[in-house]
Amino acid sequence: MEVRGEFPVFRRDAECGPGWERRREAVVFDSPYLRVEEVEFVTPSRPGGGVEWLVVRRKNAAIVAPRLSDGRFLLVRQERLPVQRALWEFPAGQIDDLAGSDDPATILRAALAELEEEAGHRLAAGGRMEALGYFFSSQGFTDEHAYLFLADGVEEIPGHDGVLGRGDEAIHEVRAFTVGDLRRMIASNEIADANSLSLWARMSARGLV
Amino acid sequence: MEVRGEFPVFRRDAECGPGWERRREAVVFDSPYLRVEEVEFVTPSRPGGGVEWLVVRRKNAAIVAPRLSDGRFLLVRQERLPVQRALWEFPAGQIDDLAGSDDPATILRAALAELEEEAGHRLAAGGRMEALGYFFSSQGFTDEHAYLFLADGVEEIPGHDGVLGRGDEAIHEVRAFTVGDLRRMIASNEIADANSLSLWARMSARGLV
Repeated sequence: MEVRGEFPVFRRDAECGPGWERRREAVVFDSPYLRVEEVEFVTPSRPGGGVEWLVVRRKNAAIVAPRLSDGRFLLVRQERLPVQRALWEFPAGQIDDLAGSDDPATILRAALAELEEEAGHRLAAGGRMEALGYFFSSQGFTDEHAYLFLADGVEEIPGHDGVLGRGDEAIHEVRAFTVGDLRRMIASNEIADANSLSLWARMSARGLV
Repeated sequence: MEVRGEFPVFRRDAECGPGWERRREAVVFDSPYLRVEEVEFVTPSRPGGGVEWLVVRRKNAAIVAPRLSDGRFLLVRQERLPVQRALWEFPAGQIDDLAGSDDPATILRAALAELEEEAGHRLAAGGRMEALGYFFSSQGFTDEHAYLFLADGVEEIPGHDGVLGRGDEAIHEVRAFTVGDLRRMIASNEIADANSLSLWARMSARGLV
């Protein structure tokens, strides 16, 4: 499958540039879902080190904006436990292969899987994935980052069982929205998650919407 | 001081709608900076409860896009420890008053303080703050949210000591960028944090850039 666009990946240690170092680190909380580390950093402006920081580690994610042939975009409405709301969002999911979570092929597979599992759609003939880089969700306390894609030209999967999301997810609805709808939902705070807003910013800056 | 625009605030429990409940919660990690809670949820689609989830709690934040009278925007270049990079971002900071962190007056004060502390600027005569709602940084694992503002018409603070950021922050530089510059930096992945991208999406959807 062809992917259009550069595909920068985030390599925290390999590409952080001179002057950065983790001098000492300890896991202070651990679970299968997130880990909290206490780290002493050396940074370009603080070459003596001594900067202690709590860092939350989490699996990376892939976010997909699925565009139909008529130009409308699909959003899913999903229950989000920490904020106690069902939010309208672009389909998103974690990249389960922790070891390979910054490997382009793994990321792309995860993005296509989310399109299928959360939205019940796939690339149509002639459809293509456009890679739009990544973003950091909250760079002050976690290195979590998510890869952004436009899935341009999607179609419903025939015979899809209609069950959306995996076991621990509850997706209420999938619906197609025009670009004007999305703009109004972003302007009004109805679309309010970093995944969808960041993907919109990238598409908008690149003239794709 | 006048603030233009609606000012929606996030009230997690008060406005979560019917069907949501936290049935049981336990703090499994605590610190002055972040807390991890293990929570059993009841949700609209899972009225029987039994959904266990780890939720990270953190102070909320205010993000400000400072616009000069010539139309350029200020960005700060700040060391971000978890991602081991210095990133170009809109000025951002946590709202230190945890109790009042979703109170409009407190949020606005925090936004103006960040403009001053991180960018060395303030509203000029005739300048105004425009409230652009809030966003969730990573709604799958934290209820952290950040309030977004356009500070339209800012000026350098005369006699500012030139020291930017607080004790635990390292800001390398403040620089003015044109809208075209910002668009290129967003498109190319150079601007890559949820704060700046979400603020851009809101400004763009509202026709402010």
